[in-house]
Amino acid sequence: MAQLDFWYEFASTYSYLAAMRCQSVAEASGARLRWRPFLLGPIFVAQGWNTSPFNLYPAKGRYMLRDLERICGQRGLTFRPPEPFPQNSLLAARVALAVPEDRRPEFSRAVYLAEFGEGRNIADESLLGELLLRLGLPAAEIFEKAKSDAVRAMLREETATAQRLGLFGAPSFVAGDGEIFWGDDRLEQAVAWAKGER
Amino acid sequence: MAQLDFWYEFASTYSYLAAMRCQSVAEASGARLRWRPFLLGPIFVAQGWNTSPFNLYPAKGRYMLRDLERICGQRGLTFRPPEPFPQNSLLAARVALAVPEDRRPEFSRAVYLAEFGEGRNIADESLLGELLLRLGLPAAEIFEKAKSDAVRAMLREETATAQRLGLFGAPSFVAGDGEIFWGDDRLEQAVAWAKGER
Repeated sequence: MAQLDFWYEFASTYSYLAAMRCQSVAEASGARLRWRPFLLGPIFVAQGWNTSPFNLYPAKGRYMLRDLERICGQRGLTFRPPEPFPQNSLLAARVALAVPEDRRPEFSRAVYLAEFGEGRNIADESLLGELLLRLGLPAAEIFEKAKSDAVRAMLREETATAQRLGLFGAPSFVAGDGEIFWGDDRLEQAVAWAKGER
Repeated sequence: MAQLDFWYEFASTYSYLAAMRCQSVAEASGARLRWRPFLLGPIFVAQGWNTSPFNLYPAKGRYMLRDLERICGQRGLTFRPPEPFPQNSLLAARVALAVPEDRRPEFSRAVYLAEFGEGRNIADESLLGELLLRLGLPAAEIFEKAKSDAVRAMLREETATAQRLGLFGAPSFVAGDGEIFWGDDRLEQAVAWAKGER
């Protein structure tokens, strides 16, 4: 079965767009998607940025907000960016890794909807707990795992892998042969590539 | 008639993609396109960059080359990036402004094909002269106009206008109401917007 890795960062607005549709697009094409949360922060720091490029370059930031507003409007998604932007996504990424893999897509979509659909603070542990419970997941157990040395190490390792693969932004899709597709705009192309279409 | 401004930079790879198709996409939808060459250099300098972001951020640069290769392949376009990258696009932009407006799209496509399809140096006056003559345009007269104070001032003015509009990259499409669409990926959305579709 064709496989594609979906690399996403919870603080990323374009990852929100991709997360809300990539599972169904991949499934409709018969491709299997692996959801791989990672942190862009260390990758940005390595290239000399101390915050999101949308803050460093205000014209680009203003455009991004408008672009998201238009695309969310077309897709029937609400868009209410949180304050501050970007959110601290460390805890959400650890929790996503602690959630059983088959429930990770659902949990991740719930985080994105709370963050960018409702403008809520995803660094808030009680919000994440609420989302876990709503999905019928054992919140206490998952938080314990999320804060373990094993999951902390796993997130560092995933982030290092992303950097080694050559990722520089999110969302990114990576096929089994290492082919990279950056951005929600490239989802269809990535799925076709994973299926061997050239 | 719906009108859309196409802002392009001759040194920009994604402007090549857009330039090769935007006229036919716009015409098929009944929108009128104004071709407006400008320089990204001053805009980049204002945000602290001294070269293309594809050089400043090598992972992004490598990805861009691969992305262009794939998309050109799908569209039946050759892709052979010139050395050095980015090219000095000052003379090409001045010449494009000196060419009669109704021939500007043709001339601009010829420049892009030479630059990114054949890897030729567009800072070379003899190449630009060759392209003008091939299109049956009066090269000597156009060069004289291109180097005049009026055209130099016009290019500075266009670049300042681009910056004032909030442009930060190329290609960009700007509708009559100031709505901005950045990138070849947004062409269809820009045309729809210009036609009043929401």
